[in-house]
Amino acid sequence: MIDLEQVHDCYISTESKIVLLVVDGLGGLPHPDTGRSELETADTPNLDAMARESACGLTTPVLPGVAPGSGPGHLSLFGYDPLKYIIGRGALEALGIDVELRPGDVAARGNFCTVDPDGNLSDRRAGRIPSHLSAPLCERLDGIELDGVQVDVFPVQDYRFVLRLRGEGLSEMISETDPQINGVPALEVRPLEPSAGKTADFVNQFVAKAAQLLSEEERGNMVLLRGWAQMPSLPPMGDVYRLNPAGIAAYPMYRGLATVANMRIIPTGHSFGDEVETLKESYGSHDFFFIHYKPADAAGEDGDFGAKVKTLEDLDPYIPQIRALNPDVFMVAGDHSTPAIMAAHSWHPVPFMLHSQLTRGEGIPGFDERNCATGSIGRIPATNVMLLAMAHAGKLTKYGP
Amino acid sequence: MIDLEQVHDCYISTESKIVLLVVDGLGGLPHPDTGRSELETADTPNLDAMARESACGLTTPVLPGVAPGSGPGHLSLFGYDPLKYIIGRGALEALGIDVELRPGDVAARGNFCTVDPDGNLSDRRAGRIPSHLSAPLCERLDGIELDGVQVDVFPVQDYRFVLRLRGEGLSEMISETDPQINGVPALEVRPLEPSAGKTADFVNQFVAKAAQLLSEEERGNMVLLRGWAQMPSLPPMGDVYRLNPAGIAAYPMYRGLATVANMRIIPTGHSFGDEVETLKESYGSHDFFFIHYKPADAAGEDGDFGAKVKTLEDLDPYIPQIRALNPDVFMVAGDHSTPAIMAAHSWHPVPFMLHSQLTRGEGIPGFDERNCATGSIGRIPATNVMLLAMAHAGKLTKYGP
Repeated sequence: MIDLEQVHDCYISTESKIVLLVVDGLGGLPHPDTGRSELETADTPNLDAMARESACGLTTPVLPGVAPGSGPGHLSLFGYDPLKYIIGRGALEALGIDVELRPGDVAARGNFCTVDPDGNLSDRRAGRIPSHLSAPLCERLDGIELDGVQVDVFPVQDYRFVLRLRGEGLSEMISETDPQINGVPALEVRPLEPSAGKTADFVNQFVAKAAQLLSEEERGNMVLLRGWAQMPSLPPMGDVYRLNPAGIAAYPMYRGLATVANMRIIPTGHSFGDEVETLKESYGSHDFFFIHYKPADAAGEDGDFGAKVKTLEDLDPYIPQIRALNPDVFMVAGDHSTPAIMAAHSWHPVPFMLHSQLTRGEGIPGFDERNCATGSIGRIPATNVMLLAMAHAGKLTKYGP
Repeated sequence: MIDLEQVHDCYISTESKIVLLVVDGLGGLPHPDTGRSELETADTPNLDAMARESACGLTTPVLPGVAPGSGPGHLSLFGYDPLKYIIGRGALEALGIDVELRPGDVAARGNFCTVDPDGNLSDRRAGRIPSHLSAPLCERLDGIELDGVQVDVFPVQDYRFVLRLRGEGLSEMISETDPQINGVPALEVRPLEPSAGKTADFVNQFVAKAAQLLSEEERGNMVLLRGWAQMPSLPPMGDVYRLNPAGIAAYPMYRGLATVANMRIIPTGHSFGDEVETLKESYGSHDFFFIHYKPADAAGEDGDFGAKVKTLEDLDPYIPQIRALNPDVFMVAGDHSTPAIMAAHSWHPVPFMLHSQLTRGEGIPGFDERNCATGSIGRIPATNVMLLAMAHAGKLTKYGP
């Protein structure tokens, strides 16, 4: 794990290359009609062939029973203890729309809401006004100027936006304005530690100006702000592991998470095919690549078992393309399970396989939950994945005399 | 784990006996031609029969991916967290040649080197001068006298020696003299903490006198010193577990490691057969025995698959001899894997079995990596082995009311 200072001297820089493919929401659960999970149902000859030649296992993203969000799910795989390094909601929301967060910036998840003439909330989500109606409101808020802090407002989707404050001495330790119920006014922001007073003042000024600018709106005449967050300061992955790591992801949030770990982001297109092309083109320039496959999670979250099966089948032909690059270590992992029958992220251990010259194959017949449970890697915390990668790549030397 | 103070009160002293056989470098990897590991290839009817009657599993010496040296590999099995208790290179080198290290002593790994007339290193290993040439040089250095500290120099092999300083207020926190490259002079020793100034002065005086005494030598006219280390202070195994533990090992380093854990060393001969005889003779005098089998690791480090197979077959007939003593708990474990195909210590989980009246046998067909992965013990940190031993021996009572 990245904080394991005792082994930091054991990491060495070599020519060998590591590719970590993260299939978002990879793990699943059996369909009640067939008793077979999405991976067991999907026709994935290339993943299965790779499993036969790999060391297999299951990863636990955080702890047994704990279903992670995308933040902890990915940070674990990068080697960061997800119970120690926490990315706040506002910061993750900003990463998800490609909003730059510099050290010191504070971000919040904002949404438009509606208040009655007495100032009490009548609709905490402003009738879920669609993006084309909320975008001009965001522009109005983006024009707000406060003395001593830069204010930026970015539309997310429908009634949601990101507020970013940039300036000196800001703090994320301020309270939220959402009272979580209708019929009462939005809350004033209070500092949660003495040094946060200035930030609380800025935000209360922002809310007052926003209320003025929006006062004529029928839906969305007020804002609620929560999830205050600054970017956590993580030990850079490149420094700790002595790697030159790169991230390739079509979706902004995953580029953001790679940035948090201090990977270099390589620009790519909108599909996984684009990502694989980018990997091929940039293969000479880095010794570690994180490449992200999103569709499995999206289908799982939709609760569409058949669609999730299809996303796995769509992924399969790309496996030989990546293997053709002949990486010293090629790993297929997931940030968490997203069983279609749950239509949500879950805590179930996630299939994992690692291919290298030092894993001559266990003959595991297929890449799925049940088969991986019998693999030689066993069940490991996801934070151990990088240790295994480094070891199999010859980049982690003997510990202790 | 030895620091698990919450369960210390649960340890009780009883008449029951525990034998821990450590097969050095036990675990392996499949031979590319056969797909079978060393243990899977070896004809070991007695180990296999014991596996059928035992609880089996795999141990992780330090962490997945982390290949341990002999120090952390053994300390783990004795119950010490190998990330917390660290034996420095100099101390381990001293243990390896039976040099006594008392608390406070500082040891370094030394070697003869050659410098040119300008004092720049021309050969950091002095042409690897053989033992018969270096021994008289060591004797010369051993005669060096410094005011306020006792200096002893012990030959190791070829160009290597151990320097031991004994005195008041010494510190291991001093820098090394080896610049790691030729063409530059040896480095002065600097204190790495304020209280180490005196030790640094002693060492610089030693080096100056050594240079004088060696100045006429063609090869080996100077010394390099590194790996400064004092013996770590470990909670004595006997106190923590309320045991009267003994160590039996033909090789000095493993006697040294047992000493670090505060076992009593029982003198023995040079072969494992001698060790087993010693075990039989001393069986009445202790309730815990660590007995060490070296040849498997040596063959693995040589990269000789066939030879490693043979060492395991050579071990096998001794298993019934140990079982005939009828220990309440008999465990076969390894400090780490040494796959012949890697010719090095590795991080792979290590086969483990525990036989006692309370493990009536799982029917595991053989003692090897794949079969042990299916055993009831599962995959455990090596630091948990002593907890299992104590429990099965009736020496670890219920925790909590």
